[in-house]
Amino acid sequence: MTIIKPADPSALRTFARRQAAVIETAMRRDLAGALTDNDPLLAEVLNYALFGGGKRIRPLLAVLSSRVCGATGEEIYRLAAAFEYLHVATLVHDDVIDHARDRRGRESVARKYGMAAAILAGDWLHARSMHLIGRFAGSRGLDVFCSSTTGMVDGEFLQLRHVADAGMTEEQYFAVIHRKTALLIAATCEIGALHAGAGPEQQAALATYGRKLGAAFQVIDDLLDYLGDASTTGKKTGNDFIEGKVTLPLIHTLAAAEPAAKKRLHELLRGDRAAPGALAVVHRMIEDCHGFESARQTAERLVAEAIDALGLFAETAAPESLSMLGGLALYVLARDR
Amino acid sequence: MTIIKPADPSALRTFARRQAAVIETAMRRDLAGALTDNDPLLAEVLNYALFGGGKRIRPLLAVLSSRVCGATGEEIYRLAAAFEYLHVATLVHDDVIDHARDRRGRESVARKYGMAAAILAGDWLHARSMHLIGRFAGSRGLDVFCSSTTGMVDGEFLQLRHVADAGMTEEQYFAVIHRKTALLIAATCEIGALHAGAGPEQQAALATYGRKLGAAFQVIDDLLDYLGDASTTGKKTGNDFIEGKVTLPLIHTLAAAEPAAKKRLHELLRGDRAAPGALAVVHRMIEDCHGFESARQTAERLVAEAIDALGLFAETAAPESLSMLGGLALYVLARDR
Repeated sequence: MTIIKPADPSALRTFARRQAAVIETAMRRDLAGALTDNDPLLAEVLNYALFGGGKRIRPLLAVLSSRVCGATGEEIYRLAAAFEYLHVATLVHDDVIDHARDRRGRESVARKYGMAAAILAGDWLHARSMHLIGRFAGSRGLDVFCSSTTGMVDGEFLQLRHVADAGMTEEQYFAVIHRKTALLIAATCEIGALHAGAGPEQQAALATYGRKLGAAFQVIDDLLDYLGDASTTGKKTGNDFIEGKVTLPLIHTLAAAEPAAKKRLHELLRGDRAAPGALAVVHRMIEDCHGFESARQTAERLVAEAIDALGLFAETAAPESLSMLGGLALYVLARDR
Repeated sequence: MTIIKPADPSALRTFARRQAAVIETAMRRDLAGALTDNDPLLAEVLNYALFGGGKRIRPLLAVLSSRVCGATGEEIYRLAAAFEYLHVATLVHDDVIDHARDRRGRESVARKYGMAAAILAGDWLHARSMHLIGRFAGSRGLDVFCSSTTGMVDGEFLQLRHVADAGMTEEQYFAVIHRKTALLIAATCEIGALHAGAGPEQQAALATYGRKLGAAFQVIDDLLDYLGDASTTGKKTGNDFIEGKVTLPLIHTLAAAEPAAKKRLHELLRGDRAAPGALAVVHRMIEDCHGFESARQTAERLVAEAIDALGLFAETAAPESLSMLGGLALYVLARDR
């Protein structure tokens, strides 16, 4: 195992902020090129959807992945924009599906501009992202990208199927988060490598890094759903349980609980999950069974595996990019929103 | 001008029905290849959405366009499926936007499976269509395709902007239907040509054919909205007026009407358009101003121009395909649903 020195949080923050500015410039240029002679409302909706203060982590992953594989040009930023477009397209459609009023501390697109505008703007971003991928990552890049986007949809269906399913296994949980989250992060890193002309071994290593990182990200997201401070995360605590989403802390608890406690959990999950007190009972049961610690350990293991996969690049000509990829993996564990 | 002999309706019908079966086989094969190890509900929703008895005219246009440019292989059917996928994706999303209960005489996807499944299935089809285009029509095909799909979204926004706009001009109307409908039909024909390795002149001629055909199709669609038999079209008569969509018959009427009649039309358009009798009054005013005939003549002119554009292919090695393209143009004028 090679030792990678991940960037420390403050160096990562400074670096990521500067890169986000470059990525946003590329996005604005791309939009200006794509939106000529268009309806002004479309441009307004797209601008609102895209420039609401995201951290631009997905495009950053594409940039860093291409850098550690030796790419040095600026074209990667044009490609990188595609990953933010797709990400925002899914958020905009998710907010329609969930009737969400807010997103990132502002009104959701669906609420501000109506459902029609939100669905259409999501479709526009979806189409534009594929356009950029096809143009800057070729047919092989498009294959990887489209497999991940169709996989995301499949993950959502799989999740719908398991609503309030107390029998959901850890394996099924990972199948859901693999498709819903990890596949696209893996594709982002792999396409960055492809763009740099990297060989199959490097592509595979970055895909592994992305897959582990994406899975860890989702495990932490699911933990924050229980443990996060709503004023920091911007999301209502316990939302997953109320919606019947069975995530890792609950799965661990269902596996570890005594028969009587397990029976009680089943009842709570199938009953009125929004009833006063239901969430608090579940929360305490998860604590009793160490479900939160256990999920956290899983995320830590995934992050360690992600960093391991970077070992292949120990001799890269872009050590700063490599250390930022390491830092991003650790950031997943540290984030509180 | 070269004389093209368009296929007669009965020959076209027989031909189109056989081709639809081949196209559907290609779609089913593609789905089977794409949907391995997937959630069974996703497969069910996609099957429901895709196999509800469409006429498969878009994929047929791609096949015929490639044939008149000299392509002979079967790969075109794999590419052609993409156009049906995209078409169905837009229908599925439209039905969410319009809260439509029915589509093609059955429950809409949104009603049968819920909004989440409908948005997600549309996204899946969208992604898969781009995948196929990138694979079988290359980067140039993807450029043409994505410009048409982002253009479609733009057309929808333009249409939203002109709701109940009595000042909408014929030019603005054509800008809307060009983007909403004609661009994608043009792209379908152009990409068929591209796939066949046709030169720029042939590509441009088929793009023109598709653009004129698509515009004529939409003009007739807008006429049928007023004049169609609801039991045949499956759509409520007068829906466009009730929704405030200002289409060609109304634009012609607003241009031709006496001041008093024009004032009355403005009031009706801005008032309660669903009020009893409102539609009947508008209908009579359009008849008085020959708005229906005038719109019909516009569609006939567009179809004649579409057929003219086929003149370039008079010496094609695939005369049957050429005559079917001519027949499809005439079919646009003859259809009653």
